[in-house]
Amino acid sequence: MTMNNLDAKRHTLAHLLAAAVLERYPHAKPTIGPAINTGFYYDFDFSGGAAPGEAELPELEALMRELLPLWKTMRGVETSAKDARDRFKTNPFKLDLINEIESKGELITLYTAGEFTDLCRGGHSEEPAADIAPDSFRLDRVAGAYWRGDEAKPMLTRIYGLAFDTKAELDAYRAQREEARARDHKKLGKELDLFFIDEKVGKGLPMWTPKGTAIKFAMENFARELERAYGYEHIETPYLGAEELYRTSGHLDHYAHNMYAPIDMDGEKFYLRPMACPHHIRMYQRRPWSYKELPVRYAEIADYNRYEKSGELMSMIRVRKFQLTDGHLFVTPEGLKDEFKNVCRMIIDGMRGLGLLDIVTYRFSKRDPNNKEKYYPDDEMWNHAEQVMKESLDELGLAYTEAEDEAAFYGPKLDVQAKNVNGKEDTLFTAQMDFLLPQKFDIEYVDRDGQKKRPVMIHRSTIGSLERVFAFLIEHYGGAFPLWMSPEQVRVLPIGETHHTYAAEVLAALNAQGIRATLDASNESLGKRLRAAKQEKLPYVLVLGNAEMETKAVTAESRDHGKFEGLALDAFIAKIEKEILERA
Amino acid sequence: MTMNNLDAKRHTLAHLLAAAVLERYPHAKPTIGPAINTGFYYDFDFSGGAAPGEAELPELEALMRELLPLWKTMRGVETSAKDARDRFKTNPFKLDLINEIESKGELITLYTAGEFTDLCRGGHSEEPAADIAPDSFRLDRVAGAYWRGDEAKPMLTRIYGLAFDTKAELDAYRAQREEARARDHKKLGKELDLFFIDEKVGKGLPMWTPKGTAIKFAMENFARELERAYGYEHIETPYLGAEELYRTSGHLDHYAHNMYAPIDMDGEKFYLRPMACPHHIRMYQRRPWSYKELPVRYAEIADYNRYEKSGELMSMIRVRKFQLTDGHLFVTPEGLKDEFKNVCRMIIDGMRGLGLLDIVTYRFSKRDPNNKEKYYPDDEMWNHAEQVMKESLDELGLAYTEAEDEAAFYGPKLDVQAKNVNGKEDTLFTAQMDFLLPQKFDIEYVDRDGQKKRPVMIHRSTIGSLERVFAFLIEHYGGAFPLWMSPEQVRVLPIGETHHTYAAEVLAALNAQGIRATLDASNESLGKRLRAAKQEKLPYVLVLGNAEMETKAVTAESRDHGKFEGLALDAFIAKIEKEILERA
Repeated sequence: MTMNNLDAKRHTLAHLLAAAVLERYPHAKPTIGPAINTGFYYDFDFSGGAAPGEAELPELEALMRELLPLWKTMRGVETSAKDARDRFKTNPFKLDLINEIESKGELITLYTAGEFTDLCRGGHSEEPAADIAPDSFRLDRVAGAYWRGDEAKPMLTRIYGLAFDTKAELDAYRAQREEARARDHKKLGKELDLFFIDEKVGKGLPMWTPKGTAIKFAMENFARELERAYGYEHIETPYLGAEELYRTSGHLDHYAHNMYAPIDMDGEKFYLRPMACPHHIRMYQRRPWSYKELPVRYAEIADYNRYEKSGELMSMIRVRKFQLTDGHLFVTPEGLKDEFKNVCRMIIDGMRGLGLLDIVTYRFSKRDPNNKEKYYPDDEMWNHAEQVMKESLDELGLAYTEAEDEAAFYGPKLDVQAKNVNGKEDTLFTAQMDFLLPQKFDIEYVDRDGQKKRPVMIHRSTIGSLERVFAFLIEHYGGAFPLWMSPEQVRVLPIGETHHTYAAEVLAALNAQGIRATLDASNESLGKRLRAAKQEKLPYVLVLGNAEMETKAVTAESRDHGKFEGLALDAFIAKIEKEILERA
Repeated sequence: MTMNNLDAKRHTLAHLLAAAVLERYPHAKPTIGPAINTGFYYDFDFSGGAAPGEAELPELEALMRELLPLWKTMRGVETSAKDARDRFKTNPFKLDLINEIESKGELITLYTAGEFTDLCRGGHSEEPAADIAPDSFRLDRVAGAYWRGDEAKPMLTRIYGLAFDTKAELDAYRAQREEARARDHKKLGKELDLFFIDEKVGKGLPMWTPKGTAIKFAMENFARELERAYGYEHIETPYLGAEELYRTSGHLDHYAHNMYAPIDMDGEKFYLRPMACPHHIRMYQRRPWSYKELPVRYAEIADYNRYEKSGELMSMIRVRKFQLTDGHLFVTPEGLKDEFKNVCRMIIDGMRGLGLLDIVTYRFSKRDPNNKEKYYPDDEMWNHAEQVMKESLDELGLAYTEAEDEAAFYGPKLDVQAKNVNGKEDTLFTAQMDFLLPQKFDIEYVDRDGQKKRPVMIHRSTIGSLERVFAFLIEHYGGAFPLWMSPEQVRVLPIGETHHTYAAEVLAALNAQGIRATLDASNESLGKRLRAAKQEKLPYVLVLGNAEMETKAVTAESRDHGKFEGLALDAFIAKIEKEILERA
């Protein structure tokens, strides 16, 4: 195994941690301690005595720094299984590892630095004292971990450390992590009172508070405006579907593991829908269509329900019920490329409008040509679909990566990928071509020649699920939402009691225009009220005193654009309405 | 039994029908034939030979008119059971009736007119030929009916007749029925392509088409504006709830027969919610409240699921899933009356805004003081709540009826009642006071004195369920929706091909302002396209020719306000935007 220099240092620090732990806790039994992408960890069994908590980490860290200068070199030697067993005879975990290495017929090596020797495969600094800067690492936290990750095996104590080449890099990482934590949507969701999960209502079922709902409505209106501009018709269909519907679609054959148990209604089975495609197909099938009317484009903010294990639920990211800005298009084969390009343009417009364009990337997910049996068997269909999709993307000049073996069962797709503040990449939503469902439901249009033909379907989303994109938006803006999305757009602060009447007038004028404004006429000092408004990251705060009252004006402090003194109230309203309308 | 004169005539006509039927179909076995509120019917067993269909009704009706002059008098005589059995020995249905009358110890009477004698309790015209105008009745339709309404008994043929005092009244009734049929929401829903039920998707689960969805969005926006004006905050909560939630609320104890079977999710039971009150209570409970912040008013267009038998489902009126413009208020006991009055004012504003104010009436539903065990046992609570509600209604000067024994289990309510086009009255929605759920969930606020107190809840709707109110609106407007609600507000008709470009410009200008406009540039004649637009009851049709094109003007034909020639396009847009905004 080759390791880069940093991984070698991190691995060495894991040994150093084990040496320090054994000095302080002689009863500890070290198990394994690898390098990870931010540093290292080591798992210990402390069942024979006291175990360190996070309070003890500084002491252990200091001890590591004391030992480090003594670790001039680190060297490995081969040994026999018998000798190794003898050396670790009181440590059942090491014995377990020795047995495993032996059974695979691999070499057994021991590494020693200072006075500490460990069973190890290697990959360390050869001269730790010289290589490792004493201020480039830090013990981070303590967690529990099962031996070998197996719930049936003993619970160990895992000590995590951070380690980089330099102190500057360590500090930069810690600052970035602090920032990400401050932006964490779970944390901000609670602090800003945007949403919550209430176990009494049900796990995995988000509750949108008044402020969260205001943002949700703003997202919904944005998606619907975009959909109208791209020629979609809005429909509303139920979140339940009869068994036959999901038999016909094939979901009960191929997708049942993602669906909830059915509900019996007078002897018929109904399912909470995992997807809305069958409903949209039945909407299409309510009447005949001419080729002149295609593409038919249906959009719906559609309720979805997907099976998720209790243990895997995660705030707004993994939920049991969500709302997808959903849509299905029925397209002539000749019109497919143009329409797919429109779908891509719309996705770009959507991401730009939400301010997420910089954090998304595009992945063209294809069938694995060497593993065709996972996919719907129709080579001609696949070749055609993948070619049309590739040409669409290329003609638009969209930068994308290609991924084999990531397509849907029935066709290729474009995945819109986004990285969250922790750097984790996730699929926000997708656009997929589908030649199969039109066949299963036997859908048609009448072509120019009077013949019945089969349309192609495109499944696509406008901005993804409202829950997931909301989580991304919270983190992306760190809670400082753009004006048009802000649950509270303006807060009105009268300086003193004599300004309360005028402040109420201003509030009424703002609310009458549909601007989300509130009044803070509490007894707190103006400074305190201003600070509160800033802490809540409100886009505009209006301060109203004598000067403003006399001239029917406002002094506006903008979060993003500085201060505007003595602006006429009408002018302020016009300004803010324009900014909202333009989603500036 | 006393009968008014019209009922006596109708009952006599049932006999006359039986006499005519026996003359034409001697094998017929007459059973029973009562008066009903639009005429009469008679049920016959035709199993011994041919049966009349609707095609035969004119012939039977003519025969009734031939017989009528011969029915100078109609007289009843008492007889013994034995004699009656002898007379009707070949008619098992009459024998059944005779046995029943005998077993009750009642008198057996036979009525004769002309040459026809029937077993009957009486209540006829004494001089049919003189009393009944020959043109005041009409045979209406044929239907099936089980003997004694019992599916296990033989199926009979029921012949319905309409009958009134005069021909004028008969004609008026038939015209009104024709109009009601033309306005029927099921018929118009299909003709105007507003909604449909697709058994493949699932019984009782309405599908909102693009046009229906446009109206739904207009209703939603209207409800939400009203809610904002009355100080409500919008929230969104899931349509599922964990078992414990509905245990705490008591729904699983008292309301389970209206709920669907639970869904198992990893060993926990979840229910499709029949009501959203528990969710709104948990929203309230997410943080502490001061008396200064009450009333807290939450509004949501909430998904509800109520158990309905397959056989009782009816288009948009009885469904398995609906959306209620729902809301829950948390009020201090001192603030209850003021807030209940606000709720009533809002209901009136809502019904006025939809144009339904004239068809709704109000019912104050109270506990039955003689049957208290059906209600939550707390006399003081009931007396107080009913008094506060009565005072609220009286102080507002609302005209209402009082109904005992119509309250909810936990408190009195105000029912908003509406009559549909067929005259059938239904509850559109309700406003209820609730002292019980606050107790069950142990909800609180901190009062002026620092003590924790219990708020009162009000459950109420803004405009009812969107499904039900939609059905009423379709029928009320006969499909000619007010401009602001219309799925298609303007249709643009270029006179000839040379006007197509200008027409497209006009269309784009309208759509850019969010006006729902379409273009009909088909090859059909202008007259035909105009007629089509009128048949679809569109509020505005724009006709564009040379004159309009040259002056950037439009000629607008309004469904409701006549014709506007050569109106500048900008002026037309301003006019229509104002009308939409004012919901004129």
